[in-house]
Amino acid sequence: MQIAVLLYDDFTVLDAVGAYELLGRLPGAETVFVAKETGPVRGDQRSLALVADKTLAEVPHPDIVLVPGGPGTWPAMADEEILAWLREADATSTWTTSVCTGSLVLAAAGLLKGRRATCHWLSLEELAAKGTEATGERVVFDGKYVTAAGVSSGIDMALHLLGRIAGDRTAQIVQLLTEYDPQPPYDAGSPEKAPAEVVAYWRELAQQSAEALQTS
Amino acid sequence: MQIAVLLYDDFTVLDAVGAYELLGRLPGAETVFVAKETGPVRGDQRSLALVADKTLAEVPHPDIVLVPGGPGTWPAMADEEILAWLREADATSTWTTSVCTGSLVLAAAGLLKGRRATCHWLSLEELAAKGTEATGERVVFDGKYVTAAGVSSGIDMALHLLGRIAGDRTAQIVQLLTEYDPQPPYDAGSPEKAPAEVVAYWRELAQQSAEALQTS
Repeated sequence: MQIAVLLYDDFTVLDAVGAYELLGRLPGAETVFVAKETGPVRGDQRSLALVADKTLAEVPHPDIVLVPGGPGTWPAMADEEILAWLREADATSTWTTSVCTGSLVLAAAGLLKGRRATCHWLSLEELAAKGTEATGERVVFDGKYVTAAGVSSGIDMALHLLGRIAGDRTAQIVQLLTEYDPQPPYDAGSPEKAPAEVVAYWRELAQQSAEALQTS
Repeated sequence: MQIAVLLYDDFTVLDAVGAYELLGRLPGAETVFVAKETGPVRGDQRSLALVADKTLAEVPHPDIVLVPGGPGTWPAMADEEILAWLREADATSTWTTSVCTGSLVLAAAGLLKGRRATCHWLSLEELAAKGTEATGERVVFDGKYVTAAGVSSGIDMALHLLGRIAGDRTAQIVQLLTEYDPQPPYDAGSPEKAPAEVVAYWRELAQQSAEALQTS
């Protein structure tokens, strides 16, 4: 079982690493980080780079495809080399997955048309505009397509996938070994729970960014 | 405000990245990944390397020190260059922090003597044996020393720290933007909650590993 994690400039590092840390512990699985070119790929905070060990061309048929999100999503959606690789990999994958705005890249490749999927809460409208039934759920399964909400939700997605692939007991062992017993000191992790003015502020900012992109 | 994340061979990637993803969003902070040498440092699953941009010598006085854990903890505890850097950095740091078995490295540097601290649940006894009051809590503050339990707990630690440094509102914004609204499909993330036979099996395995290390 080969797991390919796609890297591209300006991805959100925890999108990739949260899911990888748990899913990579799948017994018998080999994980490979892939990008257009091998070498360091810098995340959106710019202070951390992850190393891609293989090019896209070297990993044409992974069993599991994992696409992180981040500000680099928008250039990635317009990158024909990335989209072509996703279509080819998806043609033979067992699972095609994403975290955060990674689902926008899958949608841009034409893989989520008419499917139920999720995304970072700030990008659900854009996901819907791509012909996808965008839900606000944290993890969405639609056939072999598995999408997760923002950033940290990749951890929950990985546990779900581990359970489906290797059984509940294996997933529970991985949860125990990664001590995933969340105890956040605040309860502000979704737009339904966060202070209303904070949510409104970020929605406004996202709207302005989208408009700026369209007129640039 | 400078945040230094220590990397060493065989660290657990999510230990570093979970805390980094949230804490790195601290307004005005600059994060730098440091290691004995610059370049890729491979994590414990071997399939992923993070890039250290600076050597230890280049970052002698960070405001926040963050030490991840992992299987590489034990060699790191015996590495005088790493221990000397930690002592020097700690002498002027505002916060000295760890995730998972990273607290064993802080203890090996003599920084946790008599202090309350936490660790991955499988290594609490070893932490206590180093003269530390080892608690099983998820995040422990003792003065400027902040330690977190296993792997994923660095995310909770980062939120606590963000609140202390920048206030509750900033921490809530970061929680919302990283959509940290955990919904694990199982409730097996601590030894109190996981199936008893799973916990017993891993305790036995850890005991055997410790004995093998002592006789090797």
